[in-house]
Amino acid sequence: MAEKPKKPQKLKARLPRGLEDRGPAAINATRAMVEKIRAVYELYGFEPVETPAMEYTDALGKFLPDQDRPNEGVFSFQDDDEQWISLRYDLTAPLARYVAENFDALPKPYRSYRFGYVFRNEKPGPGRFRQFMQFDADTVGSATPAADAEICMMAADTMEALGIPRGSYVVKVNNRKVLDGVLESIGLRDDFSRKLIVLRAIDKFDRLGPEGVRALLGEGRKDESGDFTKGAGLTADAAERVLNSTCPQEGTNAEVIANLRKLSDTAIGGEGISELEAISNLVTTSGYEGRIRIDPTVVRGLEYYTGPVYEVELLLDTKDEKGRPVRFGSVGGGGRYDGLVSRFRGEPVPATGFSIGVSRLQAALTMLGQLDTQAEFGPVVVTVFDRDRVADYQKMVAQLRQAGIRAELYLGNPKNMGNQLKYADRRNSPCVIIQGSDEKARGEVQIKDLIEGAKAAAAIASNQEWRETRPAQFSCAEADLVARVREVLARHDVAWG
Amino acid sequence: MAEKPKKPQKLKARLPRGLEDRGPAAINATRAMVEKIRAVYELYGFEPVETPAMEYTDALGKFLPDQDRPNEGVFSFQDDDEQWISLRYDLTAPLARYVAENFDALPKPYRSYRFGYVFRNEKPGPGRFRQFMQFDADTVGSATPAADAEICMMAADTMEALGIPRGSYVVKVNNRKVLDGVLESIGLRDDFSRKLIVLRAIDKFDRLGPEGVRALLGEGRKDESGDFTKGAGLTADAAERVLNSTCPQEGTNAEVIANLRKLSDTAIGGEGISELEAISNLVTTSGYEGRIRIDPTVVRGLEYYTGPVYEVELLLDTKDEKGRPVRFGSVGGGGRYDGLVSRFRGEPVPATGFSIGVSRLQAALTMLGQLDTQAEFGPVVVTVFDRDRVADYQKMVAQLRQAGIRAELYLGNPKNMGNQLKYADRRNSPCVIIQGSDEKARGEVQIKDLIEGAKAAAAIASNQEWRETRPAQFSCAEADLVARVREVLARHDVAWG
Repeated sequence: MAEKPKKPQKLKARLPRGLEDRGPAAINATRAMVEKIRAVYELYGFEPVETPAMEYTDALGKFLPDQDRPNEGVFSFQDDDEQWISLRYDLTAPLARYVAENFDALPKPYRSYRFGYVFRNEKPGPGRFRQFMQFDADTVGSATPAADAEICMMAADTMEALGIPRGSYVVKVNNRKVLDGVLESIGLRDDFSRKLIVLRAIDKFDRLGPEGVRALLGEGRKDESGDFTKGAGLTADAAERVLNSTCPQEGTNAEVIANLRKLSDTAIGGEGISELEAISNLVTTSGYEGRIRIDPTVVRGLEYYTGPVYEVELLLDTKDEKGRPVRFGSVGGGGRYDGLVSRFRGEPVPATGFSIGVSRLQAALTMLGQLDTQAEFGPVVVTVFDRDRVADYQKMVAQLRQAGIRAELYLGNPKNMGNQLKYADRRNSPCVIIQGSDEKARGEVQIKDLIEGAKAAAAIASNQEWRETRPAQFSCAEADLVARVREVLARHDVAWG
Repeated sequence: MAEKPKKPQKLKARLPRGLEDRGPAAINATRAMVEKIRAVYELYGFEPVETPAMEYTDALGKFLPDQDRPNEGVFSFQDDDEQWISLRYDLTAPLARYVAENFDALPKPYRSYRFGYVFRNEKPGPGRFRQFMQFDADTVGSATPAADAEICMMAADTMEALGIPRGSYVVKVNNRKVLDGVLESIGLRDDFSRKLIVLRAIDKFDRLGPEGVRALLGEGRKDESGDFTKGAGLTADAAERVLNSTCPQEGTNAEVIANLRKLSDTAIGGEGISELEAISNLVTTSGYEGRIRIDPTVVRGLEYYTGPVYEVELLLDTKDEKGRPVRFGSVGGGGRYDGLVSRFRGEPVPATGFSIGVSRLQAALTMLGQLDTQAEFGPVVVTVFDRDRVADYQKMVAQLRQAGIRAELYLGNPKNMGNQLKYADRRNSPCVIIQGSDEKARGEVQIKDLIEGAKAAAAIASNQEWRETRPAQFSCAEADLVARVREVLARHDVAWG
């Protein structure tokens, strides 16, 4: 097909907006993170499960990120049998479908973990991607607060496994029932849409402070740009009650719980507080007090939560490249969603789960210097000095590989040795192999140690001698090639085989 | 939100057709395979790169699997800026986009590998999924047959790394230029659509044999069901020429090449044969003769190939569960596609690559017994005897985990100890921990060894004594819990921490 006529117009190569390509450092960092998270989840007894990237839209539909715009937020297409299919926007809705479909075959409680990419059809922005990775764990079929407590402890252990020191993260726990109690007590029990406005207002406490939230609970709020956001229309009294029950509180878990109890006057609120108390007792007994904190400000955006909700926050403030402070905030969260599997089953199926934003956490860990983003060493490059002897060079490559040494033949145009060395530099190769006709005649090869060479180049001004005693290039017998390359790799701590 | 009114209709939980959910055995097998493939590709000097699951449709468009139906084969949706986006259907087209977009920043030749799911909007069938995994490696920016030879050797090494014995696979190599030469010699040089029909006919040699292919090259062929497929309309002479140059040939690579040369009378054909010869020489020098075979029957469906094409075939015949013979055929393939990056660049960019069908190969390896699909041991389960003492049990779990032992608290309804033991069985737990009030009073715990217990149950009929000497359940001091559990795990070779 070589002679197929070429179209004259040139196509533009461009990544669709909101997506990213990833190179070796990012890929290796993700792999390392995923392995660490997996190890903790396995230790906790969770087993892996994987669902495909797409689901029937109706299986996701009711729980789109924003219920006001039911067809937005997800990427959807119609199958040739007219059914709508969507890319998953999280890993919880597909799990609910999986559990419901395989209910009788699964052990109960069913404890599983899974990770993978999720897709959001949202306006992309800085650090806001349309494809990103999540790592979830869920316990389905258990109503006890012990299941929630486990998930919180696992979240804490995961943070430490990832290298985040104790004290630099916190797992914050609240309960939707406590919020429901407050809403009931101000007469909003059945007013679903106003409840949503109230929850969204509370969720902005971090950003807007008490005055901003108070405005959003009342008539509304005008922001700096002059835009007006309509509020929930609560009376000043009602707004005050909401604020009191959802503002940040100092103190131990026991103190926060005692305070919440004082403010609560509904059955549902009392139930929520008792669940928080049970969680608090369990994590305290197991030694997680301080790391897992009852925090009335936690709301979690998704509307399907029905009980305890959790959020993992990084407490470290750090600086970006331009020296501006960066606060990471939430890198994961979750909660109890007793209604999600029930939708399919028509019977109550309690469930609780937790999701780590791997992509987001990776950005945080990279900034904190907790991820090794240094380029690894590349392969040993066998250069092509003599175009007719490519088969000989290829054979050297095969010998090195058989010894477990990462190696390759230079496959570009060999006419210029300088380009070959430049290529090896670009690949961060530890050394290159050269064999011209003179060496061949003597049964020798040249090994050029690029790491030593770089050091020598750096040292040459200050220390002439140093270069002479540690040669960056030397000859050896063909038969010693593997052994001598091994010496070079060992000298520079390059991992091999 | 607990009181949100429930809709009366029950949603049906169903996986969209052509997709699959995957459990622990399949997931672990894929992970093991991916690690082995990765190790070989790294050894060959390739570095990882990852592109997102979606691309602008025009970046894929020209190279849809079937050019006759340009809008079929992929899942597509329109973005809110009206641009069409498609899920990737392979990993080659996205790589071409990536290389073109980042051309100046990449080392040349650019050698990279990547793996991930690809999506095909095709009619699903048995073993034919709409989402499956591929693992690719490509060398971009190298025109030398040495690059093709490398890829073939790497394919062979990968098969062996995956446990497929030498002699049970073959890497078959052909060259599109040889095919182009034959087509030119029968006057089809510029007749693109008839060329495609000829290539499709050759591709069916395995299934239809020489007579079937001859019919498809001529007027057409009626299959057993009576359906008629229109042929390429070649004369008998021309069809014979095509068949002679593309039928299976016995003999060494050198013999096959000599034979092809006898049949070839065009410049392009001669060029193709010389490239095959260069590849053959390189792989022979490096010791891959016999594993990598020149084979004139290889076509590869995708139309973008421009030179050498390769295909990895498993030679083992095996039987399915019903004892019927299964021939796996191709588990990977690739070739040179010098035009794919050029589309974006407007200048020639030679490239060659190889793709392993991970999902397909996994099915093959599973059937061959090369993949460990045995269920691993589950976690140690600490049971809940006394509902009021959940915190104590949770603490035991925490102790076990701190010692690196996979463990969990039973989180279901604890009222029935039988259910708890059944759960532990379902999870394939090595042992369960029980502490009733009697044991608590004595400062003891019970450890029930489920593996020993199962053995004992099996042995009980034949050997009463055996059971008595190796107790499946015993008491120990609370303080010895971790040490005694370790003994149980060690006794049964259960990996931990």
